[in-house]
Amino acid sequence: MTGRVQLHADGPLARVVLSHPGKLNAMSRAMWVQLREVFTALQRDDGPRCVLLQGEGEAFCAGGDIAEYAGFRFEPASLAAFHEDEVWGGLQAILDCDLPVVAAIRGACMGAGVEIAACCDIRIAARGASFGAPIAKLGFPMAPHEAQLVARVAGEPTARQLLLEAAVLDAGTLHARGFVQHLADDADLDAEALALARRIAALAPQAARLNKQVLRALRERHDPDPARAAAAARVLATAYAYAPSAEHREGVAAFTEKRRPRF
Amino acid sequence: MTGRVQLHADGPLARVVLSHPGKLNAMSRAMWVQLREVFTALQRDDGPRCVLLQGEGEAFCAGGDIAEYAGFRFEPASLAAFHEDEVWGGLQAILDCDLPVVAAIRGACMGAGVEIAACCDIRIAARGASFGAPIAKLGFPMAPHEAQLVARVAGEPTARQLLLEAAVLDAGTLHARGFVQHLADDADLDAEALALARRIAALAPQAARLNKQVLRALRERHDPDPARAAAAARVLATAYAYAPSAEHREGVAAFTEKRRPRF
Amino acid sequence: MTGRVQLHADGPLARVVLSHPGKLNAMSRAMWVQLREVFTALQRDDGPRCVLLQGEGEAFCAGGDIAEYAGFRFEPASLAAFHEDEVWGGLQAILDCDLPVVAAIRGACMGAGVEIAACCDIRIAARGASFGAPIAKLGFPMAPHEAQLVARVAGEPTARQLLLEAAVLDAGTLHARGFVQHLADDADLDAEALALARRIAALAPQAARLNKQVLRALRERHDPDPARAAAAARVLATAYAYAPSAEHREGVAAFTEKRRPRF
Repeated sequence: MTGRVQLHADGPLARVVLSHPGKLNAMSRAMWVQLREVFTALQRDDGPRCVLLQGEGEAFCAGGDIAEYAGFRFEPASLAAFHEDEVWGGLQAILDCDLPVVAAIRGACMGAGVEIAACCDIRIAARGASFGAPIAKLGFPMAPHEAQLVARVAGEPTARQLLLEAAVLDAGTLHARGFVQHLADDADLDAEALALARRIAALAPQAARLNKQVLRALRERHDPDPARAAAAARVLATAYAYAPSAEHREGVAAFTEKRRPRF
Repeated sequence: MTGRVQLHADGPLARVVLSHPGKLNAMSRAMWVQLREVFTALQRDDGPRCVLLQGEGEAFCAGGDIAEYAGFRFEPASLAAFHEDEVWGGLQAILDCDLPVVAAIRGACMGAGVEIAACCDIRIAARGASFGAPIAKLGFPMAPHEAQLVARVAGEPTARQLLLEAAVLDAGTLHARGFVQHLADDADLDAEALALARRIAALAPQAARLNKQVLRALRERHDPDPARAAAAARVLATAYAYAPSAEHREGVAAFTEKRRPRF
Repeated sequence: MTGRVQLHADGPLARVVLSHPGKLNAMSRAMWVQLREVFTALQRDDGPRCVLLQGEGEAFCAGGDIAEYAGFRFEPASLAAFHEDEVWGGLQAILDCDLPVVAAIRGACMGAGVEIAACCDIRIAARGASFGAPIAKLGFPMAPHEAQLVARVAGEPTARQLLLEAAVLDAGTLHARGFVQHLADDADLDAEALALARRIAALAPQAARLNKQVLRALRERHDPDPARAAAAARVLATAYAYAPSAEHREGVAAFTEKRRPRF
């Protein structure tokens, strides 16, 4: 049993569950591959309008599955392949997903957990949740893509605190700093996260996709990967192609007619 | 009556008022053009030393004037012209103004209101003010320049929350996250904003202009527009030309002589 | 007596003390040069694992030593040399140091003090500390490198508030905004800062160096200085060379064996 990433597609709301019983949902190598597969599938699926990402049970994700580390971490080529292909492949699939992604965070959100949360658009956390990346106790640094991601979304002072102090921060601190956008009482997290995801799923789906594409394109138009830079340029060059779309007409018409839009 | 942007130049303090009665100062196309004209005029005027930007009555600005939308939004060319020329023309005129600009925000600050506020240097908000960009209810995304602006100034987690949740955030939340630098009780907003703008107007005017030029140049030295990149390079290359200026000598002399400087 | 920057190397913990008695540790030109020398020496020293940076007595650093200003500020070439060589030389030596640097801040942290604090990784401040950059009262702007540094670490809204308002902000405000990561009661600052620095010094030293190198390289890989850009590219290209290192093996082994690592 090496854990798994489960996808529950359920009409407009898809749920992705990180599940590794007995290990607080620590990410195994198999789970990173599944994470990529799940989000790649979601990106191709016309049904869902919002993704809710959760951990099973009492944690979001406690980090990587350290039991596997001796098998690949001590050789540069296999270590690079792990971080660049498996981990970054999974994280980039979340970042590349055009659907709004809500992370519902309770309990431990450590290392890989913080990275996965940073790829999501909206973070709602239980007040009792704990955030950290205490790899300075494990004798290794954060990989470049992952460090850049965490510094970008959580802010560089917080990234330095997580990495250089091995600090564990509570949800309230990260809410004040803006990384966590919503706090919930622990008992209410599931219900509030579900209600939030449903509210998002009821909003204009094409607008959400375009907003996510544009924010990604603004970041990637100078990407060292020419394919990503070209994709970003295309997004920005066609930013107004939505003008005659049914969704756009319906949203404006509904407002003018003082009725609820039907997206 | 399509609203207007009024300029009250009053010695060292200029006031700009967004005024669209009955529409919570929603920005009409005519107002975007006037916004550009007003800030372009301010940039050329030697008199003012600080700009106070407000909405008339009980709101800052409730967004765009949706009554106009059917006339131009559903065709890509006219939609692009609206966002790139009219809206961005107005916003960029604020960003290009070398005078410190203080936004005094009460009531609704939505969509265009958030964008205008993000172009200002200092935001003082009444505790009862509300911030949002709920265009996901209207079926359209934020235009690229505008999304980049809001993400840069308010932070990307807040930008995603505004756009993907259609969230409405209160002034206290945005103060904790640093977007709003000052909170005031609703009844005190006008007086506190005026006092703040007057304090700024009494500070060294050339230093303020140079600080604004340098912060803009650092952002624009790799701008895709070669004219903007060249202007940025010139600012950075001449960053110390102020050395022998009267203002610089007066500020240092006044400090040494333990007296108030006369700027 | 023009002040000095003292280095106390003391096993794994090095202390750097800004000392300018009677001037709240204002930075003289001699002190900027010493700051560079001290951090350049620390970067070459294998002994220390963490640096604690403090001001002597009741202040961190009140700014520049204004008594020296008449001697060099009013001529562009000497002013540029001061900011680009002396000030930036000192600040960049902190930024270039691979050791984690903790700033312990009490009392005045103004101008140069904010800039020095922004170069540190972790900021712990006494609740009574005050932060500002009130050079708008002195008739001059912040130099470009320095403005970019403060805007990057403290956030652009805070940088604009410091520069354009000449605002003085308390430690609690900057803690809420994430610039200050830790608050302490004034009486407890020294003890808490020391304990924090000792905790950091007990963590994996190579991991800390690599984390700092990677965060710097991500920022500098497009640096206009080709030497810095090349150094950044090398760091990123060799990011996984640590794989077979003793520290990495020890950290993972200790976790697996449920014992404390010996770094």
